[in-house]
Amino acid sequence: MSASPNSTPVNVIAENEEQFRDFKLLNAVNDRYGGVIIEITEPMDSALFASLLRASIAQWRHQGKKGVWIKLPIQHANLVEAAVKVIYRLLQPNQAVLRAFLKNPEGFWYHHAEPNYLMLAYWIPESAHTLPANASHRVGIGAFVMNEKREVLVVQENTGRFWGTGVWKFPTGVVDEGEDLCTAAVREVKEETAIDTKFVEVLAFRYEICKQESEIEAAKWMPFDEYAAQPYVKNNDLSKYIADICLAKKERKYSGFAPVPSTSVFSNEKSYMYFNTYDLNGQ
Amino acid sequence: MSASPNSTPVNVIAENEEQFRDFKLLNAVNDRYGGVIIEITEPMDSALFASLLRASIAQWRHQGKKGVWIKLPIQHANLVEAAVKVIYRLLQPNQAVLRAFLKNPEGFWYHHAEPNYLMLAYWIPESAHTLPANASHRVGIGAFVMNEKREVLVVQENTGRFWGTGVWKFPTGVVDEGEDLCTAAVREVKEETAIDTKFVEVLAFRYEICKQESEIEAAKWMPFDEYAAQPYVKNNDLSKYIADICLAKKERKYSGFAPVPSTSVFSNEKSYMYFNTYDLNGQ
Repeated sequence: MSASPNSTPVNVIAENEEQFRDFKLLNAVNDRYGGVIIEITEPMDSALFASLLRASIAQWRHQGKKGVWIKLPIQHANLVEAAVKVIYRLLQPNQAVLRAFLKNPEGFWYHHAEPNYLMLAYWIPESAHTLPANASHRVGIGAFVMNEKREVLVVQENTGRFWGTGVWKFPTGVVDEGEDLCTAAVREVKEETAIDTKFVEVLAFRYEICKQESEIEAAKWMPFDEYAAQPYVKNNDLSKYIADICLAKKERKYSGFAPVPSTSVFSNEKSYMYFNTYDLNGQ
Repeated sequence: MSASPNSTPVNVIAENEEQFRDFKLLNAVNDRYGGVIIEITEPMDSALFASLLRASIAQWRHQGKKGVWIKLPIQHANLVEAAVKVIYRLLQPNQAVLRAFLKNPEGFWYHHAEPNYLMLAYWIPESAHTLPANASHRVGIGAFVMNEKREVLVVQENTGRFWGTGVWKFPTGVVDEGEDLCTAAVREVKEETAIDTKFVEVLAFRYEICKQESEIEAAKWMPFDEYAAQPYVKNNDLSKYIADICLAKKERKYSGFAPVPSTSVFSNEKSYMYFNTYDLNGQ
């Protein structure tokens, strides 16, 4: 008799064991800070996911890993509940720090979201986490654009708080993630008015909660004095400062922050540094 | 015979109908832009949630509502899947704009997340949405602090890219959501070094992807020249600019942007405007 009829089940068992070993931990890559990033790309049953995640975390805890990230595409939303509700850590009564610091101390918590994915985070060590904060700000820009006739470029919005007020304002917009401020300003002016511009410098900045995207109803060139004489501009603290700064700039009496390209030796990424180049270099 | 044995079921039916009417729509409040915000505060079965949400959206579509927001606390993560997977809109083949613009065109998509909640969004009209973008940036600060002996305040980190390099750098930190830049700078210096400082002005700014929170190992006052002579400072474009600007400032040859408090007549919120106050007011 040949050995083959008996060897078949042995092979099958071996394959199963191999599969089991493969599937016991979730696929993850190391990050640069002693943590791991799980990227879910295939559909998965949520109970299976929970058990794999539990086994993976036990293993990573043993290896001294710190942060665990799950990048979960929106099509795998069925796994969110398992990540946040399953208990991956049993807290001792005296672990008040962890309880206070982690919003969901036993399981994963939400770090940030983009339209098509949710990023979840978990911290293995028995100490407060040192994971980076999520994004907290949007950077908006308003552009002071002047032509050779010393007219300023202004727009009217068809939505938002200025809609129907007759107010003419500077073109405004939002800086995209990873976009340079000077690029964003030129892009927004082009999108709203079709005018090509050259970025000169940052005249001023401020913090404000920006409520709503604006859409443009009209755009035109307007004499600067006419712009500054609008009641909205004259009677509002902030607009008045902006108009005064623009006027000083127009009369060459004001230095803002101009962008100077430079490279970081660490990241090797080019970025702009904005500063008072006139005071520093006389230009 | 009395009518009561028969009236009981009538009452029950009436109550059920009333409950049905109450439960048919999810509780929501109007926002200022023609949309509604659903806040989930009680545990709910996900199938019930999906059917209520479907009925609510039908009603809101009829009323001409635009954006729909769901603020979903992490403890109700069981409802995420229903919000994103259930089809609340049947797209026609020619609606390429919506398909391209909405990441999850038939259901809700992720707008943003904080540790303890997920914000989901949906756009009812058959047009591209005008909902605001989520936060895209973190604002980091580095503080140039000098004492009467013209020594600069420097720290060493115990994590991150400078760990173990011996580099002394300026204290750095991240501006919290809603926090003013000048407040954040003073707070971060205090947290890292226990030194009380007064904010003077913004000397410069730049864009960079900030990878990791830092933790401080040591802090001390260092003669400015010694700081500037460190190879990391001398040989790095960006650090060199910063050192040059600080030197010019130290010698009173440089104007940055100083914060001036002002109030918007629209939001009635106080905020700081940062600009070259020397050029504008001679101070």
